[in-house]
Amino acid sequence: MADQLVQDLYAEIVKIPLIDPHSHIDPRRPTARSLDDILGYHYYTELAHSAGMDKALLADVSPRERARGLLAHVDRFDNTVQYGWLLEIARTFLGFQGERLTAGDADALWDAAERVLARPDWEAYVLKRSNLEKVFLTSDFDDPLTGFDPARYVPCLRTDDLVFHLDQPQTRTRLARATGAEVGDLAGLRRAVRALFEHFTARGAKACAVSLPPDFTPAAVPDADLGRALDAVLAGEVSWQRGVFTAVQMVRSVLQSPAEESPAGVLALGVFWMLAEHCREFGLPFDLMVGVNRRVYRNGVYQGQDLFDQRTSLFQYTELFNAFPEVTFCVSVLTSGQNQELASYSWIFPNVVTSGHWWYSNVPAYIEQDARARLRAVPKTKQIGYYSDMYKLEFGLPKYNMYRRALARVLADDFVRDGAMTEAGALELARLLLRENAKRIFGV
Amino acid sequence: MADQLVQDLYAEIVKIPLIDPHSHIDPRRPTARSLDDILGYHYYTELAHSAGMDKALLADVSPRERARGLLAHVDRFDNTVQYGWLLEIARTFLGFQGERLTAGDADALWDAAERVLARPDWEAYVLKRSNLEKVFLTSDFDDPLTGFDPARYVPCLRTDDLVFHLDQPQTRTRLARATGAEVGDLAGLRRAVRALFEHFTARGAKACAVSLPPDFTPAAVPDADLGRALDAVLAGEVSWQRGVFTAVQMVRSVLQSPAEESPAGVLALGVFWMLAEHCREFGLPFDLMVGVNRRVYRNGVYQGQDLFDQRTSLFQYTELFNAFPEVTFCVSVLTSGQNQELASYSWIFPNVVTSGHWWYSNVPAYIEQDARARLRAVPKTKQIGYYSDMYKLEFGLPKYNMYRRALARVLADDFVRDGAMTEAGALELARLLLRENAKRIFGV
Amino acid sequence: MADQLVQDLYAEIVKIPLIDPHSHIDPRRPTARSLDDILGYHYYTELAHSAGMDKALLADVSPRERARGLLAHVDRFDNTVQYGWLLEIARTFLGFQGERLTAGDADALWDAAERVLARPDWEAYVLKRSNLEKVFLTSDFDDPLTGFDPARYVPCLRTDDLVFHLDQPQTRTRLARATGAEVGDLAGLRRAVRALFEHFTARGAKACAVSLPPDFTPAAVPDADLGRALDAVLAGEVSWQRGVFTAVQMVRSVLQSPAEESPAGVLALGVFWMLAEHCREFGLPFDLMVGVNRRVYRNGVYQGQDLFDQRTSLFQYTELFNAFPEVTFCVSVLTSGQNQELASYSWIFPNVVTSGHWWYSNVPAYIEQDARARLRAVPKTKQIGYYSDMYKLEFGLPKYNMYRRALARVLADDFVRDGAMTEAGALELARLLLRENAKRIFGV
Repeated sequence: MADQLVQDLYAEIVKIPLIDPHSHIDPRRPTARSLDDILGYHYYTELAHSAGMDKALLADVSPRERARGLLAHVDRFDNTVQYGWLLEIARTFLGFQGERLTAGDADALWDAAERVLARPDWEAYVLKRSNLEKVFLTSDFDDPLTGFDPARYVPCLRTDDLVFHLDQPQTRTRLARATGAEVGDLAGLRRAVRALFEHFTARGAKACAVSLPPDFTPAAVPDADLGRALDAVLAGEVSWQRGVFTAVQMVRSVLQSPAEESPAGVLALGVFWMLAEHCREFGLPFDLMVGVNRRVYRNGVYQGQDLFDQRTSLFQYTELFNAFPEVTFCVSVLTSGQNQELASYSWIFPNVVTSGHWWYSNVPAYIEQDARARLRAVPKTKQIGYYSDMYKLEFGLPKYNMYRRALARVLADDFVRDGAMTEAGALELARLLLRENAKRIFGV
Repeated sequence: MADQLVQDLYAEIVKIPLIDPHSHIDPRRPTARSLDDILGYHYYTELAHSAGMDKALLADVSPRERARGLLAHVDRFDNTVQYGWLLEIARTFLGFQGERLTAGDADALWDAAERVLARPDWEAYVLKRSNLEKVFLTSDFDDPLTGFDPARYVPCLRTDDLVFHLDQPQTRTRLARATGAEVGDLAGLRRAVRALFEHFTARGAKACAVSLPPDFTPAAVPDADLGRALDAVLAGEVSWQRGVFTAVQMVRSVLQSPAEESPAGVLALGVFWMLAEHCREFGLPFDLMVGVNRRVYRNGVYQGQDLFDQRTSLFQYTELFNAFPEVTFCVSVLTSGQNQELASYSWIFPNVVTSGHWWYSNVPAYIEQDARARLRAVPKTKQIGYYSDMYKLEFGLPKYNMYRRALARVLADDFVRDGAMTEAGALELARLLLRENAKRIFGV
Repeated sequence: MADQLVQDLYAEIVKIPLIDPHSHIDPRRPTARSLDDILGYHYYTELAHSAGMDKALLADVSPRERARGLLAHVDRFDNTVQYGWLLEIARTFLGFQGERLTAGDADALWDAAERVLARPDWEAYVLKRSNLEKVFLTSDFDDPLTGFDPARYVPCLRTDDLVFHLDQPQTRTRLARATGAEVGDLAGLRRAVRALFEHFTARGAKACAVSLPPDFTPAAVPDADLGRALDAVLAGEVSWQRGVFTAVQMVRSVLQSPAEESPAGVLALGVFWMLAEHCREFGLPFDLMVGVNRRVYRNGVYQGQDLFDQRTSLFQYTELFNAFPEVTFCVSVLTSGQNQELASYSWIFPNVVTSGHWWYSNVPAYIEQDARARLRAVPKTKQIGYYSDMYKLEFGLPKYNMYRRALARVLADDFVRDGAMTEAGALELARLLLRENAKRIFGV
């Protein structure tokens, strides 16, 4: 058991209604419909596969069989914190009362899930039980944003496809369909991007977001270069002619990888900068999720293929942070190793805010260490404590509980016991991290 | 409250008279003259600005107004450890008895500061109360070093301007005025540098110091190349002619950034190496403060613009450490991420010493973690535990207390409770870290 | 004292019979023969030298004098964990009863060592006392592997010389002598490598191992390029002709350093890949020890010259991990900073296993932090908890005890007290880390 002070703080912290500023919830289908929706979370499929489960057990079977197959491997990773989330969901929502989840529990859990997940009040119950007040979405740029309450499920414009896949014809087709603007030249591209921002802000969007690879280095691309890059991309060119290459020398000093020297790479730089300009104009914070390499393990399960290269720095964002003092950048880093950069850049730049504990750093050992540093070095009004990153509402409770436990420990050890704060002061701080800062920064 | 063992160790550790081997004290004006001198520390101006304070509130107002403005923002960053220093100063030196500092305390604090800071015995009182025996300075190379007691305030030759700004005419003018030697050619440069070392050591200087950017990679520059670089700099050239570039191929393998390929970059390498040669000849330890990028946030407050790029390595210093076995390098790193390199290089190289907890790593979460690793991996005689880095004497007490608390915790948990040392042994170790190592290494 | 739960867990953990999957034991001379064999461990010579001991005290004196000289410097590094191992050996095996080891203990320790180390049952006694069941070796590729029991001392093919020193004629001579195959061309090289794997697996080898520098980036080298590189190396060429360089453009995108562009560098890439192919064919796990730069401190003591550059990433191993799904890669990283990469790559790639706490990360501060992260993020079946890396059996006990203490703390704090596991569950986990995973992965 944790000591009394930690327990007392935790008991108060769980009462704070949550603003969850980043999730992958589908607002039209926010809860799980079956145990398969829960066990299908990539954490379980990738851990089971990593621990030896054949991918065929995921693909060619019925949902119930898939759940059985997955639970048959759970004893290989029941040490992980992700297993801990599952156990907490089973206990809190599915009536599970055992010590450990094993293969033998598959059918009983499946049936329990069938019963409770179909309850008409299930969504409302989960939100209430989890103390979730608002949940931010990650909305595709061509999402119509209809059919849900944007005060509950707050739209957020996800822009990865625009930045990194505009060289793919289907992205341009989707963009034209969503905006009515053809991306035939630079002016058309700008019209399309503006139309997206108008649509999203009109429908209640409160943020723009993108995830970025470790070598990405934002730079302002001169219009002439950007136009040339767009032309080349539209013409299907994947590498520059030598003569054109010379033309982009102006941005060349920031190009870190050969990939960025391609037309698609320069286009990515240019579109990214254009998004920052629109965030400024439309008053949207820009969520930057820094550091992920896509498709590293090429034969991995769905969403279980991405990793990272620790050789990256927020120094790469110097020009961006200087150029857009009016835009609030909510920055997540993928590694705990980069947390000191995040804390320090947020300590110095007024427009940089620390945001959550992302993915590979979303385990207690890193959360506690990273929160500890941020809480003593970054102004308390500039920290977004946590977000769920969840795909189904049921995961909000165990994920936030993991964070709240870590937070209670840090507040107890580093603030209250140290004499730096009273318990009341510590709880005020927790309230900023879990609620008030997100409300103020995103305007919700 | 900390447990009894930690309290007992702390109570003994604070009795050790301190040798503070790095500060920015002005020995002719060592204490604050007003509350403005305390609140003007860049930590407060940069945190307030980062948390939303307009820079105009710092610039165009009276000192008393500036203090009011700053305290009006302190509730945005009263979670930080830097706020903790301020609170401890207010309580220890200014008679503050409240729970928290707020905007409402500005005038009372100002008046209290007026009273105590003017006391004729103030400097002596602060030194005694803080248990500070000697305080090292960071002296400009053209400081006359007169008007103070070098046994109390120990001069240290700061060389950043020589290494990085010799391409600026005013640096050369200052150098000529200070030494009587014109930097018209390489021989003149050497005469000037030698004159500086003679002047400084004659006046009691005990160290040479420089701060270095993350991409700096020391290398011996052949005289011919160095002379050519100096000529080019004197002629106002900012980039090499192609032909000259070929001439510096000998050092090119160490050039990490395009900046270093310029004449000024090669001159920086050459002057740095020359300084190491003079440290050897004059028997001075060389303080290397590794990893800072200057002016990253270009619109930041004074001294609140510098950050870093974590992609750096002490491996870059291999040639230097091998070439100067007679010179003791007291190395500070800016990031906790580099602490393992520092501990390991100091564990292996006889001439590398770990030094303090610098700037962005000078927060409890990093101090404790970094000290923990050093204390179990580096010979105890090769560790300089802490320095204040302070500009005004009043900051010595809270900063050292922060370190002493962290040290007491590490000694309790990792040594005494573990059975690795007795309490007496742990206190002996603390004495080396806070006093004896600095005395021996710097010869004071 | 540690608390009761930690003590209870530790008491049970030490009862688990150990499989030590990496050591440098000479199976024909596994124990120390004198105190000099113990004090001659590079940790003591390098720490003493780093703390000021003249290397002459190691070289030109009798073994007893050498031991005296080393113990005369031990009071400069008796804070280190390596000193802790020595103290534990003295107490456990040599009857030492004092508080601290000092210069005055040299002769008594020497005599005690003379007595006990000569006991005929000494090897058996040390193994039993240390609870060591099997100890893996690091066998030179031309080791005949005779004269010992491979069920006790498990051979492992160490391949550093093959990968990095095949450009040296004596390596090729040794290879020809060991295999009967001349390395005159690519076919000959393949024959020789295959002969090694046949010899080693026939003699009970259960792993292949290599240590790699930070900039190493595995890549498949086309046969034509590899043949050309081998020809160039055999012809004594140390750099490419411009024309040939063009021919290796296929691998150039992975070349990180100019060194790798040399014929010897391309040969290293090609031989490494060939070893992975043979691991696949012969069913051997491949131990990768990632991140060491050799001979950084060129004037250091024997084995006390190597360090590292933290700027490295497992991202460099992407192609390797993808290309060999059938090979289990047991990966050690030299820095704690890279531990999150290791945990994450092992969490995603089925064929990547975390392995031990290596060298500069083998100190309690890093072990505890690194284990904490792995235990909550990596499937429990994919973690090799620890290996001794020892040269003499006497070091198994104190090194494993250091790890077991750290493990008991992590299990108590992060699992049992947190409610995530029962004590029995935590001990089951410890058993996987110290024994069962190694048995399953290596097939012993």
